[in-house]
Amino acid sequence: MTAGRIQGTVRIVGAGLIGTSIGLALSKLGAKVVLEDASPANVRLASDYGAGKPASNSDNPVLVVVCVPPDVTARVVAAELNTFPEAIVTDVASVKASILDEISRTDADLSRYVGSHPMAGREKGGASSGRADIFIGRPWVIAEHETSSRKAIKLVEELALDLQSTPVHMSALEHDRAVALVSHVPQLVSSLLASRLIGARGVELAGQGLRDTVRIAASDPKLWVQILGANSTEVVSILDEYSKDLEKVIEALRDVSRPGSLSTIDQTIANGNRGVEQIPGKHGSRNSQFNSYVVMIDDQPGELARLLTEIGEIGINVEDLKLEHSPGAQIGLVELQVLPAVGEKLTHDLQARGWRFA
Amino acid sequence: MTAGRIQGTVRIVGAGLIGTSIGLALSKLGAKVVLEDASPANVRLASDYGAGKPASNSDNPVLVVVCVPPDVTARVVAAELNTFPEAIVTDVASVKASILDEISRTDADLSRYVGSHPMAGREKGGASSGRADIFIGRPWVIAEHETSSRKAIKLVEELALDLQSTPVHMSALEHDRAVALVSHVPQLVSSLLASRLIGARGVELAGQGLRDTVRIAASDPKLWVQILGANSTEVVSILDEYSKDLEKVIEALRDVSRPGSLSTIDQTIANGNRGVEQIPGKHGSRNSQFNSYVVMIDDQPGELARLLTEIGEIGINVEDLKLEHSPGAQIGLVELQVLPAVGEKLTHDLQARGWRFA
Repeated sequence: MTAGRIQGTVRIVGAGLIGTSIGLALSKLGAKVVLEDASPANVRLASDYGAGKPASNSDNPVLVVVCVPPDVTARVVAAELNTFPEAIVTDVASVKASILDEISRTDADLSRYVGSHPMAGREKGGASSGRADIFIGRPWVIAEHETSSRKAIKLVEELALDLQSTPVHMSALEHDRAVALVSHVPQLVSSLLASRLIGARGVELAGQGLRDTVRIAASDPKLWVQILGANSTEVVSILDEYSKDLEKVIEALRDVSRPGSLSTIDQTIANGNRGVEQIPGKHGSRNSQFNSYVVMIDDQPGELARLLTEIGEIGINVEDLKLEHSPGAQIGLVELQVLPAVGEKLTHDLQARGWRFA
Repeated sequence: MTAGRIQGTVRIVGAGLIGTSIGLALSKLGAKVVLEDASPANVRLASDYGAGKPASNSDNPVLVVVCVPPDVTARVVAAELNTFPEAIVTDVASVKASILDEISRTDADLSRYVGSHPMAGREKGGASSGRADIFIGRPWVIAEHETSSRKAIKLVEELALDLQSTPVHMSALEHDRAVALVSHVPQLVSSLLASRLIGARGVELAGQGLRDTVRIAASDPKLWVQILGANSTEVVSILDEYSKDLEKVIEALRDVSRPGSLSTIDQTIANGNRGVEQIPGKHGSRNSQFNSYVVMIDDQPGELARLLTEIGEIGINVEDLKLEHSPGAQIGLVELQVLPAVGEKLTHDLQARGWRFA
């Protein structure tokens, strides 16, 4: 018996990060999950992790979730629609319009297909990085098309809800425009910026600002060529606007004494302020619902454990924690996040025990 | 008596974030600090925080630290050199060549001036954001020039060391090139990206990637106009290269079917990978010199302490640690970074003790 909404077998094709994570989450709910992958080793690995059983010919899935790379997604979706004439089929690729277009040019029954895109992931891929919780609270785009059956839409919605995602309905084109803006263009902008560091001098002055700005530049080129290639039209249309703005500010910087130059620079930064405000939810990495305190510890084994043991003795729960080493320093900085109500007790009691706050 | 290296009165001109933070750190060491600011209210505020005493006519400073906005820094440095004919004067502005140039065109005694730039700061400015620890472990650029006296260079170095910074010697021009790369260009790139979000649809799909990339776009336009205006030559020279790369990838995306297009996209992302690897140290996302392991813990007081105590018993030093809560889940994920050589022992011994790895 499953505690989830979906009744019946779910077949997952592609046991990478997303496929394995979906399998883990559904299996936790008690759903019957079967796994297929071009690599039998991947299936065994994901299966060992508890993501489901290896698929067999006798499976009769109600839902097929295609989790393969973008460039083969359409082909696999069409094949699954044909192999399982009763099943609803969805995919999780991060582009939607070109895939829909490609499937609709096959003989497959399009009414049983609904595209989706869970806005979740990790920097590392592969079955072994799979985690049941990566979808929790994240948007799950459901890109139904004109001929999608009600039953198909409903089942994919149930999948999203079973994984504790928030379903967001969009057309394939709306989706592709949105992800070009919030994901694909940022990727390129970050990669282009990071490229400037190659062979440069003085990079040791880098602070958190640069590090945050280029963090996603560490992403996998192979995957991104596929994503950007498949969504090039939407990406280019945003990059064209970006490029115009860039040329304007370069021109202003080339002669800052010319009337209007400083106001162009000012406008560029001010527009950035306005843009950031458009992003809903919590900004940056740290959570504002907690108070943050920084404790200094000696950089040696056991120190952090001793600190946390004593915090436990005081009876305070640490909501979030970040350890920072200062290069070359014999000291570590531990940033503790706790509920505002216990902040004063934390500082008072720890100071009484000899801990130093930065 | 002071526990620091600097003996004698330190005069801080400008009681904003940096001035107040320097005052707090020096005062903690027992140094005599006096504060000057165009706003008497700022002086009172910083003084109340413990950053020093209000300056008076009878002060005889050995060192003057000018912490005013970049566009008035040269003028204030020259005035301080003239008012205190025995004192060494430094500033903390984030551009160095144009300020040195402007001072050298006054009648002030340049041999007593050494520029500096502590690579530290916070998103929030003002005296009330001041903190004694913001310099710890951060680079402190000392931009001596040809006529800087040995005594002046030594005193500014002592200031950096008293604040637990790492002195980095560079010429003004080397400094300006380096900060254009690691700070000024990233600021513009981030602001230009964030600007694209204004009035756009689908921003609710934004994940951590976008948030990190545009975090610094929330910075103060007024300050940045001054910084970018004062370092425009170096910024433009990097932006020109950035712009060329951008046009190349736009061209490739405009026609992905053309031979060479996909390899241009691939190269862009791959170069970004190489660029990120240039950034030294443990800060930022995660460091590749360590192996990373994720342990699952119950979300209750004492669990993390128990884990770290056991890691201490095993005899392994944790190089970096990050605690991650899954919203809504009764489980926490602890990402541990350890030296590759002890990774296997860590997983083996912890698993033997019943810990689960994600």
